[in-house]
Amino acid sequence: MRYELYYWPTIQGRGEFVRLVLEEAGAEYVDVARGPDGMKALMSVLKGTKGVPPFAPPILKAGELVIAQTANICAFLAARHGLVPGDEGSRAHALQLQLTIADFAAEVHDTHHPISTGLYYEDQKTEALARSRHFRAERIPKFLTYFDHAMQGEHLLGAFSYVDLSLFQVLSGLEYAFPKAYARIVTPKLSGLRERVGERPRIRAYLESPRRIPFNEKGLFRRYPELDDEG
Amino acid sequence: MRYELYYWPTIQGRGEFVRLVLEEAGAEYVDVARGPDGMKALMSVLKGTKGVPPFAPPILKAGELVIAQTANICAFLAARHGLVPGDEGSRAHALQLQLTIADFAAEVHDTHHPISTGLYYEDQKTEALARSRHFRAERIPKFLTYFDHAMQGEHLLGAFSYVDLSLFQVLSGLEYAFPKAYARIVTPKLSGLRERVGERPRIRAYLESPRRIPFNEKGLFRRYPELDDEG
Repeated sequence: MRYELYYWPTIQGRGEFVRLVLEEAGAEYVDVARGPDGMKALMSVLKGTKGVPPFAPPILKAGELVIAQTANICAFLAARHGLVPGDEGSRAHALQLQLTIADFAAEVHDTHHPISTGLYYEDQKTEALARSRHFRAERIPKFLTYFDHAMQGEHLLGAFSYVDLSLFQVLSGLEYAFPKAYARIVTPKLSGLRERVGERPRIRAYLESPRRIPFNEKGLFRRYPELDDEG
Repeated sequence: MRYELYYWPTIQGRGEFVRLVLEEAGAEYVDVARGPDGMKALMSVLKGTKGVPPFAPPILKAGELVIAQTANICAFLAARHGLVPGDEGSRAHALQLQLTIADFAAEVHDTHHPISTGLYYEDQKTEALARSRHFRAERIPKFLTYFDHAMQGEHLLGAFSYVDLSLFQVLSGLEYAFPKAYARIVTPKLSGLRERVGERPRIRAYLESPRRIPFNEKGLFRRYPELDDEG
């Protein structure tokens, strides 16, 4: 099956969690919005899907099935491609971790958009400075301590699974957006996981390919030096 | 099986989405933290769970299995108790809707805590006023239009499922927290769904019982009149 991914074409954003699963699975897929007439196709799926419509990208088309919500798409693909064990308990634990990563990512977003997604960063910069100060002091340590503690050996679930890919992405994004705070807070276990995931052959090939969009200041993880630690 | 739910004992909060599924399922469960030594038991599960630890309540204990994350728990219970169809597509669509409801609920939370969960509301009130203004003008209409449009007949998934319970809860919470904005924005289809869910025999019995904690200003949905529409 050739999957179709619909996501904003110029950012990693939440779509990147899905791209990493597709790449690790070796799945055949088209990143539709990056092709010709791509944005038109994205808008058509976003607005024209019958049945259960998507609220927002990323959206995955798998044959006739059209699904949305990042963690949902990742869990769906992982189940189909052997990137999560098949038993009820493991599936629930994987989704639990994936949703905790999603919560963390949502908090990263709100460091630069604490008041409204409808306003520019520059129009909520004072509030962004305040939110980021709390985020660096309380939330990054809380989440990273949690994930460090949650690791079972070299992986989150004991053996490699899709949630390791998502943790890799969040750690990479944090280092991009908050390089000083990240260096201060990251733990050896988490650095190790990030390195191992980045060295998986398919992930390494992906990261070195033009398919990997560089981090930038339109995405989820933005490098605004004033939001990072001082000094 | 007798389930154990671990959640903050004095608020509906995110635990309420789980309580509604347990009640509709007619499942046997203990709301542990509301019993004797309940907070001690909650802390013990929160800090002492081996394997995959929970990040935060709600937490469900199902035999040996301990799982967290609201949408994950709801989907898990629904699958066990016939509150969602069994096919891959329906499961994915249900979780997609549930996660969109969770995103909406997280945005509700941030109307009163836009800067930090570690600060009191009073210490971030100026920012809360700004965030709520955007939330009422842009986000409530966007989410409610979406859910109105997503309804298939009388339910979100065509037939009754657990996501209807969660939409009921969000609509009830919105009416509590933002009564004026809610009255202005809610649609007949959504009011109808809310009414039908509230009239389901097990849900009605639950809502009339002391097990239903009233909404209050410690929870997710808080009535701060200054955050609602004027006039």
